[in-house]
Amino acid sequence: MHGKFIVIEGLEGAGKSTAHQSVVAILKELGVQDVVFTREPGGTPLAEKLRQLIKHENEEPVTDKAELLMLYAARIQLVENVIKPALAQGKWVVGDRHDMSSQAYQGGGRQLDTDFMQTLKEAVLGDFEPDLTLYLDIDPAVGLARARGRGELDRIEQMNLDFFHRTRTRYLELVKNNPKAVMINAEQNIDQVRADIETAVKNWWKYNEK
Amino acid sequence: MHGKFIVIEGLEGAGKSTAHQSVVAILKELGVQDVVFTREPGGTPLAEKLRQLIKHENEEPVTDKAELLMLYAARIQLVENVIKPALAQGKWVVGDRHDMSSQAYQGGGRQLDTDFMQTLKEAVLGDFEPDLTLYLDIDPAVGLARARGRGELDRIEQMNLDFFHRTRTRYLELVKNNPKAVMINAEQNIDQVRADIETAVKNWWKYNEK
Repeated sequence: MHGKFIVIEGLEGAGKSTAHQSVVAILKELGVQDVVFTREPGGTPLAEKLRQLIKHENEEPVTDKAELLMLYAARIQLVENVIKPALAQGKWVVGDRHDMSSQAYQGGGRQLDTDFMQTLKEAVLGDFEPDLTLYLDIDPAVGLARARGRGELDRIEQMNLDFFHRTRTRYLELVKNNPKAVMINAEQNIDQVRADIETAVKNWWKYNEK
Repeated sequence: MHGKFIVIEGLEGAGKSTAHQSVVAILKELGVQDVVFTREPGGTPLAEKLRQLIKHENEEPVTDKAELLMLYAARIQLVENVIKPALAQGKWVVGDRHDMSSQAYQGGGRQLDTDFMQTLKEAVLGDFEPDLTLYLDIDPAVGLARARGRGELDRIEQMNLDFFHRTRTRYLELVKNNPKAVMINAEQNIDQVRADIETAVKNWWKYNEK
């Protein structure tokens, strides 16, 4: 049987790592044992090298287009070499970020042209998409304060608050228009977030897992 | 006065380095002193790192799409951070490869979808293009024998002869349809190649340098 691809999305500090643990535990409870974890950008030897270039390059300004192209190069390596083979073997994949991150950060945050974004996505990924996306919604100021508590911020995390507000706005639009995406209020306490994730996954399971 | 962008294209072993020296000497003779040299992929700190990933990655298969996306990421860094600023300062730029290489190698050699190639090119580069392209035409078997004489071949240079025949065929089509490109027979002896390059550059100069 073919596996399923569940993605966790959200701003820095929204709680994606904790959500990932919750999703894995809920899937185990539902009888899914074989879960592969991925993160983007990254998750293959080449994609991890690209992640370094994307997040830490400082010797010259990185153009918005180069950033987006490197993100898609990393993504197609991960999809073709890790995610699709795992799904074909019947494994489930839980991803920390996927394409919605580019749509939100590069499309919303950096305001790259929407038609270009759409064309690139279709040309690179075709009709490949997650079976379920859990978007953890949080006010950027709250999320960034949490992320700062964890240590130094990377190149993208150092953008100003307006950038993250545009990113969040785009996330909310994308989730609203995507029947396979669910919004989780990530400003609640950790137990309530966990309960909402459980409800979302189990609801989805009821109608989609066959 | 705005500078001009001249590109040298061709298969491995076609003689691009020698042609570059010839072009610089001819330009000097014509009174152009300030010439910047670029090579692709590469030419900026980030683009050179991408060059390493493109040419030497071996830990996993590199998908054709990832290769193309990395090439364009490197190209837009070079165009925005080096070539355009140099031209704006009135410097001339002589490039070892530019976009025609992707059209020929990834479009012809790897047979990536032509519409996708065109869309990506337009979205990334807009209407930026070389003022003159000198394409050094050589039989792939002859070129590769020369390149092998120089030492170890990289990941792309290890492709089979069919790949390079498809690449050459695409180069010839592109040059035929590009009024700003000139074909040079690179199988001639070095003095004749040099003379043909001089004729091509001086002809172009007569009609285009104002």
